[in-house]
Amino acid sequence: MAFQYLTNSPLDKARDEYLAALSASGLAPKGEAVAVEQALGRLTFKAVYALRSTPHYNACAMDGIALNSQLTYGATETTPVKLSASQFMRVDTGDPLPQGCDCVVMIEDVIEIGGEGVELAVAAVPWQHVRQIGEDISAGDMILPSYQVITPAVQGALLACGVREISAVRKPLIGIITTGDEIVPSETEEPAEGEIIEFNSRIFAGMLAQWGAAAKSYPTVKDNAEDIKLALEKALEECDAVILNAGSSAGREDYSHSVIKSVGTVLYHGIAIRPGKPTILGYCGEKPIIGVPGYPVSGIIVMEQLVKPVIAAITGRRFEAAEVISAIAARTLTSSLKYREFIRVRLGYVNERMVAVPLESGAGVVSSFIKADGIIDVPQNSEGVRAGETVKVHLLRHESEIRDTVVVTGSHDPLIDELADILSLWKPGSLLASSHVGSMGGIMAIKRAEAHLGGIHLLDEASGEYNIPYLKRYLQGQDAVLIRCVQRVQGLIIKKGNPKGIKCFADIAQPGLSYVNRQKGAGTRILCDYLAAKENIDTEAVYGYLREEYTHTGVAAIIAAGSADTGLGIYSAAKLYDLDFIPICDEQYDFLFAKNALELDNVQQFIKALKSKEFAVRLERMGGYTITNPGELITWA
Amino acid sequence: MAFQYLTNSPLDKARDEYLAALSASGLAPKGEAVAVEQALGRLTFKAVYALRSTPHYNACAMDGIALNSQLTYGATETTPVKLSASQFMRVDTGDPLPQGCDCVVMIEDVIEIGGEGVELAVAAVPWQHVRQIGEDISAGDMILPSYQVITPAVQGALLACGVREISAVRKPLIGIITTGDEIVPSETEEPAEGEIIEFNSRIFAGMLAQWGAAAKSYPTVKDNAEDIKLALEKALEECDAVILNAGSSAGREDYSHSVIKSVGTVLYHGIAIRPGKPTILGYCGEKPIIGVPGYPVSGIIVMEQLVKPVIAAITGRRFEAAEVISAIAARTLTSSLKYREFIRVRLGYVNERMVAVPLESGAGVVSSFIKADGIIDVPQNSEGVRAGETVKVHLLRHESEIRDTVVVTGSHDPLIDELADILSLWKPGSLLASSHVGSMGGIMAIKRAEAHLGGIHLLDEASGEYNIPYLKRYLQGQDAVLIRCVQRVQGLIIKKGNPKGIKCFADIAQPGLSYVNRQKGAGTRILCDYLAAKENIDTEAVYGYLREEYTHTGVAAIIAAGSADTGLGIYSAAKLYDLDFIPICDEQYDFLFAKNALELDNVQQFIKALKSKEFAVRLERMGGYTITNPGELITWA
Repeated sequence: MAFQYLTNSPLDKARDEYLAALSASGLAPKGEAVAVEQALGRLTFKAVYALRSTPHYNACAMDGIALNSQLTYGATETTPVKLSASQFMRVDTGDPLPQGCDCVVMIEDVIEIGGEGVELAVAAVPWQHVRQIGEDISAGDMILPSYQVITPAVQGALLACGVREISAVRKPLIGIITTGDEIVPSETEEPAEGEIIEFNSRIFAGMLAQWGAAAKSYPTVKDNAEDIKLALEKALEECDAVILNAGSSAGREDYSHSVIKSVGTVLYHGIAIRPGKPTILGYCGEKPIIGVPGYPVSGIIVMEQLVKPVIAAITGRRFEAAEVISAIAARTLTSSLKYREFIRVRLGYVNERMVAVPLESGAGVVSSFIKADGIIDVPQNSEGVRAGETVKVHLLRHESEIRDTVVVTGSHDPLIDELADILSLWKPGSLLASSHVGSMGGIMAIKRAEAHLGGIHLLDEASGEYNIPYLKRYLQGQDAVLIRCVQRVQGLIIKKGNPKGIKCFADIAQPGLSYVNRQKGAGTRILCDYLAAKENIDTEAVYGYLREEYTHTGVAAIIAAGSADTGLGIYSAAKLYDLDFIPICDEQYDFLFAKNALELDNVQQFIKALKSKEFAVRLERMGGYTITNPGELITWA
Repeated sequence: MAFQYLTNSPLDKARDEYLAALSASGLAPKGEAVAVEQALGRLTFKAVYALRSTPHYNACAMDGIALNSQLTYGATETTPVKLSASQFMRVDTGDPLPQGCDCVVMIEDVIEIGGEGVELAVAAVPWQHVRQIGEDISAGDMILPSYQVITPAVQGALLACGVREISAVRKPLIGIITTGDEIVPSETEEPAEGEIIEFNSRIFAGMLAQWGAAAKSYPTVKDNAEDIKLALEKALEECDAVILNAGSSAGREDYSHSVIKSVGTVLYHGIAIRPGKPTILGYCGEKPIIGVPGYPVSGIIVMEQLVKPVIAAITGRRFEAAEVISAIAARTLTSSLKYREFIRVRLGYVNERMVAVPLESGAGVVSSFIKADGIIDVPQNSEGVRAGETVKVHLLRHESEIRDTVVVTGSHDPLIDELADILSLWKPGSLLASSHVGSMGGIMAIKRAEAHLGGIHLLDEASGEYNIPYLKRYLQGQDAVLIRCVQRVQGLIIKKGNPKGIKCFADIAQPGLSYVNRQKGAGTRILCDYLAAKENIDTEAVYGYLREEYTHTGVAAIIAAGSADTGLGIYSAAKLYDLDFIPICDEQYDFLFAKNALELDNVQQFIKALKSKEFAVRLERMGGYTITNPGELITWA
């Protein structure tokens, strides 16, 4: 196959033309009969009319007596009207209004005069305290027009009006075909190197379910045009639309384009968005076929931007746009002029400002969609966003959740996640968002009011003292507070059995040894640089000294997999992976707080968690921590 | 049983104390194992940790060549580095990084030099274009803490990390017991007078489903303490909480209070809210038992205000408060000082103001929950809200939906619903909200900028002319536009077969005849008053002249049920109910528009619908309409 070039078509144009082409080909919602009991959340396909009035009879709306109002003319306190037993009927709420009666007098207003008669001191108004026929809905009234959502109240009203079945929009079935020689099912216990667990289809099926569509996932097809074609033809027979996942680019083994072309029409191949460029918009008859790129983040963006509008067209469902709020960009976001970019951000409400921090942008990083609170949509031909600028953010979460979230930015330690879990167990719905940017990043986040607090463990080389010298240097005159957390053991994390015979820190410079480091600004990196200087190690000669990981578990994972021999990290990470460990020093890991954050309830809960027995138990289990006076306020300025 | 008095306890106090009592009794979420594939929308019961890193191997992130970066040191355009075939490997995206390699050079940067060697003109940086082990998530990392929602992206991440089953919060099962001698199942084809179709349980079950709980509806129990007790005991055995619907007040046949007391504890009986006062908050062991009032509107309010927080406590789910917007109250809302009131309103975005119009307040009017866009929460001890005042409205719909809605306020004609349906069929999601307040109400709504348009048919007695004289009288100097709709036939709607032998309008004064009228301000009422004056009818002598209905179908429904003999209305209503009809006059039914509303797309669509073939076909089917120049602009000022 000749090398193809993808087009770079603007998203809005491509989407509008695609929807118009689908509509011209006959794509439209279809109807089916659905029992009202089963119709919650479905859409009406046809207008629904009441078959019966509700109430269907004139109903007494009070406990009391029913009578003809004419009998009460002129009744007052001084000239009460006497009624004999034959002139009224005792009734309860819901009883039919007896023949000849046109009103109800409530029991509190009925004066019992002994015998069977009563007296009334107020004249009754015709039809008082009567729910007349059709008061709520009259037979023949339209209850809902077409394409409206069936809510619980609608279900109730329909049953009340004698409607037990409606014509609802048929839930479309969307076929999902995954392709790729390297893809293995999620049941695979031990995927080999080069095998990739299939999980995109689950993400897509979940998104489709949230949009009111059903998904049918087909077994993964090998990278082979013939097999893909057979699978696509089968799916087109069985489904209302097909998503062809991966192979949508223009590389050696990308067959989606040619296969879609062989069974139908390709309208667009290549959309000017990032991530998500290698997208194919095609169809066969009235059935949409969409080639979605394989990286999960690209896939999610393409699902949201291009598949969701197609689902709207198939179902007649109205999707409200995500809420948009203003936030301050924490970093400069450079943008290519070529693409419209969708940048996932974490939002934090700190110091009465909403701040947006961009997340790791790799298209394979699906966890960024767990962490993301919103998306910045940077238009094509824009130069991006400068740090400090106000930007519009499309929310992925409720603003109230974001406002309630404790933002933790700084050094990584798994104990932060444990604190988050304790908070959530204490009060379900408590939210804590942590970013691992290293201790120096934590100090800067507090300085720039982008976080409520952050973990730090910074060794001052000159004094050998932890944290305080850094605060004096960087936060002098700022309202920041240090609160004691733990002492933890730092050391060399080493492959189980220590095959390279590492004995001390200086051994990282051994030839043939592969090191893995932490990123610049991390407290552990600073410690590493300090140790290397102390031991006169030429770090340029350490293989892997520039290989950077962002977390202790990241370092341990690489060593456990045999991809590096050793790296500096905390004991709990080594223990988690059952690795060897050479302790090097104890260090102080504390939390730095913006002073005004201490007033927040959720931050107070965080401090309470820090002091809790529960936390101490978890630290004990994780190993390598010493806890003395947690939550103690350390004065430094 | 002695007459009981209900307490009048403030809602917040009652709710907080109830939740505290339930928690003290041991109410808490429970967990169960759930497959990740089935976990969409569920909550984690325990924190979830990654079992495997993702990626689980160092993966090439580009098509190109893999090599050891040290081989490329010093490579520049002028001093390219030559590599022999044994020094690199050709790789595709996703391939494992071969042993001994630490970077990938993308194919675009590889210079083929013939034979099997290549040249590079740029030095490679270690680990470039490699997705390192754990780049996304490292084994042992916490993916989610407890009580967090499983989204599609979370499902994907869990599978990617080797997690195929999680401990999720068990969906609680809520028993719903309906009680009442008069209640019959919704399958009942022809409920007799005094029988009430059971539909509350369906509404409640739908609400519970939306909150993440399952419902079990039990067969309706008669008003009989012993039977109710047996049903309650069975439900308590099978369910996590029980809703006892109706019988929650303190009347003769209200057994809920005594029954709950006989099996457990009643904490509150009577909450200071309207609607919803007769509510019971009780429990047995850790299981909540809530007595919910029988009127559906009261029931929905109590479900929302008191049952939802209980579901939050059983599930650990965080429910975000409804969005609140500001709106201008269209009417004065008087409030009793005694209750906190929940007033359902329809919202309209007209002339760049959000206006809130209170809906019919009857507790039995479930259709008001279909129409409601929001709720005004009027605190206890407040004097209510004056017309024109700005109020806070808790939204039941998206604000964007409300802003897109065409607000039609005025005279009732079923043709308005047909136009709404046409709009929705043309463009699914189009919204039209109509209120039937009569022609004069329509004029006032335009004058006060509360509606975009409204139907009017107002006969000027002096001139015999329709509509224009009224506009000159009430809207002089205002930017309002009249657009032609239809001529329609007004006449007497009469019971099939005309058993009372009615021949002409004057016969409504016959002794023994029962009339049903329209509300004051309705065009049809004005016509009726005009006809009565013309015929010298003493309306005080007409039985039922003050019996008011708000719609033509409402009048027809009452006559069809035999509850009145005749009433003035349009032919299509008579035809809908298969009733007899004596035509009296043709009248002009037009639409009055606020002039600036004509600029709105949705209003333009409305006018387009008015002129459509489709509309003409529907009018023909409904009967009694003549259509000439629909959509024609009538100049009047």
